[in-house]
Amino acid sequence: MKKALILLGCPEAPSQTPMAVYSVYRLTSLGYDVTVASTPSAMKLLEISDPEEYYIKNKIDIESCLENLEEGSYDLLIGFVHKDAAVSYFVTFYHILNTTSLAVVFEKDHDLLASFVESISESTDANIVSARAYHNPTPLRVKFDRAIKKLGD
Amino acid sequence: MKKALILLGCPEAPSQTPMAVYSVYRLTSLGYDVTVASTPSAMKLLEISDPEEYYIKNKIDIESCLENLEEGSYDLLIGFVHKDAAVSYFVTFYHILNTTSLAVVFEKDHDLLASFVESISESTDANIVSARAYHNPTPLRVKFDRAIKKLGD
Repeated sequence: MKKALILLGCPEAPSQTPMAVYSVYRLTSLGYDVTVASTPSAMKLLEISDPEEYYIKNKIDIESCLENLEEGSYDLLIGFVHKDAAVSYFVTFYHILNTTSLAVVFEKDHDLLASFVESISESTDANIVSARAYHNPTPLRVKFDRAIKKLGD
Repeated sequence: MKKALILLGCPEAPSQTPMAVYSVYRLTSLGYDVTVASTPSAMKLLEISDPEEYYIKNKIDIESCLENLEEGSYDLLIGFVHKDAAVSYFVTFYHILNTTSLAVVFEKDHDLLASFVESISESTDANIVSARAYHNPTPLRVKFDRAIKKLGD
């Protein structure tokens, strides 16, 4: 079974936790065994968002995950990015895993959004989708679905 | 079967959608048939947060819900409040339903939090729980659980 890792940083944006559940759901339906690595505050939101662990079976603290990470641990890396810290996490995990990767970048502010995308393109060859999403998750969801479909083709 | 209605306003706070799923889960486990009435943007977040409708079986637009609302439609009203508009919705639904009600008030800003609580206490006899929650849903979840337990006693 292919293994996917989803990275979640600090949950400032209302769409992050819902999009995280959705992406686990989508990847699971594509046959991936999905693990979510997140900061403690993002994990608390995941826990109440899926109290029976119906969608999210595997959760791990992002720092503990990083300690034991090596090339081959996962086949697919997905990083949610809407903070500088999340850019750093994504780039670090990308270079250790050295596998197919997708950064999902979202921010209300246009300049910040562009700077996150630029930082990731400069430091990796990852696929990137970005949207000025905050409340409304639809633009991000549509781009995410399209990117996942392309990875599968 | 007892019927509960949960009101969701504009989803500015990252904890709102996860807390909404959690509260549906808790009330369902207590034997309520739960409906969530929400604004369009809050509903989009609910949809991706529970794509298989495992937790949230009944969703309705808050305005359509209001049009057909009458005393006796629901046995329990729960309103999530972190905007002026949500205060108004809660007070309106409260006076139409005239039943056991709980306002769950959350805001980062201390003064705004106090003003929402004051507005609701002035206009209703509803139970109120409040917390300066934003990222971290735990204080709000603990108070919510305690209030729900008290309603059941």
